[in-house]
Amino acid sequence: MNEVNDYVIERKINQLNLGYAECIDADRIEEWPSWFLEDGRYLIQTRENLDKRLDGGYWMYFTNRSMIRDRVTALRHISTYNKHYYRHLVGNARIVGRDEAVYFVRASYLIVQISYEGRTECTHAGEYRDKIVFRDGTPYFKERLVVCDTFHTPSAVVYPL
Amino acid sequence: MNEVNDYVIERKINQLNLGYAECIDADRIEEWPSWFLEDGRYLIQTRENLDKRLDGGYWMYFTNRSMIRDRVTALRHISTYNKHYYRHLVGNARIVGRDEAVYFVRASYLIVQISYEGRTECTHAGEYRDKIVFRDGTPYFKERLVVCDTFHTPSAVVYPL
Amino acid sequence: MNEVNDYVIERKINQLNLGYAECIDADRIEEWPSWFLEDGRYLIQTRENLDKRLDGGYWMYFTNRSMIRDRVTALRHISTYNKHYYRHLVGNARIVGRDEAVYFVRASYLIVQISYEGRTECTHAGEYRDKIVFRDGTPYFKERLVVCDTFHTPSAVVYPL
Repeated sequence: MNEVNDYVIERKINQLNLGYAECIDADRIEEWPSWFLEDGRYLIQTRENLDKRLDGGYWMYFTNRSMIRDRVTALRHISTYNKHYYRHLVGNARIVGRDEAVYFVRASYLIVQISYEGRTECTHAGEYRDKIVFRDGTPYFKERLVVCDTFHTPSAVVYPL
Repeated sequence: MNEVNDYVIERKINQLNLGYAECIDADRIEEWPSWFLEDGRYLIQTRENLDKRLDGGYWMYFTNRSMIRDRVTALRHISTYNKHYYRHLVGNARIVGRDEAVYFVRASYLIVQISYEGRTECTHAGEYRDKIVFRDGTPYFKERLVVCDTFHTPSAVVYPL
Repeated sequence: MNEVNDYVIERKINQLNLGYAECIDADRIEEWPSWFLEDGRYLIQTRENLDKRLDGGYWMYFTNRSMIRDRVTALRHISTYNKHYYRHLVGNARIVGRDEAVYFVRASYLIVQISYEGRTECTHAGEYRDKIVFRDGTPYFKERLVVCDTFHTPSAVVYPL
């Protein structure tokens, strides 16, 4: 890639990350699956498990967009949980590799949770490890692996991170 | 807009957001009004109120630069308050729309407050919803609406967010 | 500089900041010295001291890469300390000046610390004030001065910030 192309790619990936975060923070969770390919995967795993090469214990393990959509249905119509506002702060993306059409990308995140009593708590930190592909110039997640530094949370993880 | 223009615009808006944050964090608050147009507006409203379409209860409601300047005078010469350091972390800007010369832009923020005893507390999270115009290539706020996720703060909001 | 060059420079500096943070967060601390010039300096000073023009009390004061490497050796082989995960969130870089080949750059940071019990705590906020030079198109720290808003920390600062 030449430098101008780098910007185009990086900027689009940064905008992907922002759009992803925004649909969660604004509670437009129905849009969340649309950032993934039809066979896109969404996984949450703690860093502690990954570091110890323990492959179990995923907090979420969805291997296609239908499973991801199911989560939205559960959140809206089935599960009962304490509601919060969320706010993601996502650092700039780093492209760490590429395999033909697949970009390997990482970005740090920090998620704060704001209770309905209005208090702010810094509840999640970690790193997105993504496989991203472009379709007609638009980036999608082939896989988003959320690696949580935080593995002791004040409440259950019901919304995606 | 073509892609190269997009970068120019986005980059300048990101720099505007950084400059705005920096004059607060560095306590060079006198520079704060200069980021606004003469008829620029600065508003702080909680997300809770906005979501319920309650139009009252603005924490700050300034409709021109003179009112914004008045706040600076109050902060420096009139109000008595407990001093803190502030530190803003502002996410990348997303241009969500455009109406002729006005760009509609959003960005997430996180503000931490550091007491004069040196302790760090994550006190504010939310979203900037801005109307931005360019004058001679430089961006200014025609309106900055600060939408606070946090509406229960450990202390009064005296400095702008 | 024209605008296209600005992007190249800023983007490379943002990537430098991400790379720096990443080698700490991923505990690949051996890579940390490689971001500095051979005569590069790494300094940590509290904002309180700087504001009062007190020149002492640096938390770290390394004036070349060998001293920086010594720190790594100490961390790996000598010091005993409570281990944590770290996560840096670094704001976009602002180039605030230039003196021939040296860029003066600032960026805000927020560091959260995750205990091995898994709890997240927002422990450090502040500003990087850097002198950056390019060698064969790659940026290096000629000096990184870490200015800590936070000067009352829950534990000793053993890892670089």
